[in-house]
Amino acid sequence: MRIVITGAGGFLGRALVRQLKGVHDIVAVDRTLGGDEGVEGDIADPAILKTVFHGGCDAVVHLATVAGGAAEQAPETAFASNVDASVQLASAAAAAGSKPRFIFASSVAIYGDALPQVVDDATLPAPHMLYGAHKAMTETWLDTQTRRGAISALSLRLPGLVARPPGPSGMKSAFMSELFHALANGSPILLPVSADATMWLMSVERAAANFRHAIEIEATGAMTLPALRARMVDLVRAVATETGQPANLALYEPDAAIERAFGALPSLETPRAESEGFAADENLQALAASAFETLKRI
Amino acid sequence: MRIVITGAGGFLGRALVRQLKGVHDIVAVDRTLGGDEGVEGDIADPAILKTVFHGGCDAVVHLATVAGGAAEQAPETAFASNVDASVQLASAAAAAGSKPRFIFASSVAIYGDALPQVVDDATLPAPHMLYGAHKAMTETWLDTQTRRGAISALSLRLPGLVARPPGPSGMKSAFMSELFHALANGSPILLPVSADATMWLMSVERAAANFRHAIEIEATGAMTLPALRARMVDLVRAVATETGQPANLALYEPDAAIERAFGALPSLETPRAESEGFAADENLQALAASAFETLKRI
Repeated sequence: MRIVITGAGGFLGRALVRQLKGVHDIVAVDRTLGGDEGVEGDIADPAILKTVFHGGCDAVVHLATVAGGAAEQAPETAFASNVDASVQLASAAAAAGSKPRFIFASSVAIYGDALPQVVDDATLPAPHMLYGAHKAMTETWLDTQTRRGAISALSLRLPGLVARPPGPSGMKSAFMSELFHALANGSPILLPVSADATMWLMSVERAAANFRHAIEIEATGAMTLPALRARMVDLVRAVATETGQPANLALYEPDAAIERAFGALPSLETPRAESEGFAADENLQALAASAFETLKRI
Repeated sequence: MRIVITGAGGFLGRALVRQLKGVHDIVAVDRTLGGDEGVEGDIADPAILKTVFHGGCDAVVHLATVAGGAAEQAPETAFASNVDASVQLASAAAAAGSKPRFIFASSVAIYGDALPQVVDDATLPAPHMLYGAHKAMTETWLDTQTRRGAISALSLRLPGLVARPPGPSGMKSAFMSELFHALANGSPILLPVSADATMWLMSVERAAANFRHAIEIEATGAMTLPALRARMVDLVRAVATETGQPANLALYEPDAAIERAFGALPSLETPRAESEGFAADENLQALAASAFETLKRI
């Protein structure tokens, strides 16, 4: 299979390329690939799309995105990248292949921040962040193109991924990853949520495995991936155990907006994704161990 | 109130301007206004938006659109007009006013063509036409901006409007209006649906009255307007009665795609819109009479 992966230079993209290389013909594309093989450029550029799809297309995994915090800072360019470029990408993929598989990295941000007591497969999108609206709009477009027979699209709504590499990510949820980096260095960290904050989490390797699985099945539409629901204090404990550092390096200084958006996540039920073979990490300790494995490879 | 009306040169726009003029301060905008007062230009042009919103904004009624058939012919420019320009319009309105009212002309096209036995307020969007996807995506954006407090948006999903003026409309449902023109002229007409085709219909004046009402209430989100559900043969009879022409001027030559998209509409229940004070035409004869009243004014 010839698989085009956008955002291939990102932390999830790298993990996915690693998992798929050798098995499939991978076309990695990103604005910067840091020396890795692939096509360097912006998928909003028609010339780049032409290069990417020149050899045909059996599947696309569309990870490239302007993330939540960054989108709030630059709404117009974020819309162009997150919506317009995704629409163009789907058209180019449809033209280059025969109803190619199209896996889209959506986000639980589509649910917004006024969540019901249980989020499940019947919960409707109600985004609050611009980023969440971009994802919901792109889901609608891909569903329509799937109904029309142009592509076979599946949107996977991702929870918080850990651990992103150090440095700015544009994510307002960056603190979840910064916890890993701080404790690995034996440094203290101020967390912008309470000890009891609840989050939905997934390791990068698990997310990549879910995307790899998505290529191989036939399910279409949008679904929320199974995730671990964890309290902040329990995540801290798992990371501390993994690093051999004391858990009290983590201090809690809740920010009301961050707590509301990322630290007040209710129960999550994902029977549809589970019945399709998607999975969460086994437990918090396994998630922490996996996250450090990924960080070591960078 | 200072009310900006896009698509003001269109047949619905003209009816709405007529209903609101003298009551409110109207800023009519369209690419062509045919000599009427207002701003001539494309709302995709930032300079036009600046002109339009220069004097502030209490409400927007956003009617401008590239219609269904035309959108299929030119997908990229239709996306730019229907989605990108709507997003820009909402931003410009938010910047010009204090949480302005924003009434968006959405469409029952968001439901697609694989409809359940009853469409009601719980039926989810599943567009098939590009036009329907554009409308659904714009609804999502306006809902998000409403949740963020930038605007107070209500999307009204319109059924088939009759009668549009003669000439190309870009609508695949144009035959509904062409029936009125043909019988008014005593001319025969070939209808691309069966006698038993069922449609959802509203007169232009009723639609304009519903938009006028929408400005004055506080409801937000998206809702489907009440519509008359009529068989084609019954619409033909009402139009024939109104014109004094024989109903057998209408001949039925069903086109499978048109019948599926516009002639197979199930029951429609719209309790939410009704409880908010929206209404359908009283009956088919009243709809036909109203449609001819509007056509006489052109």
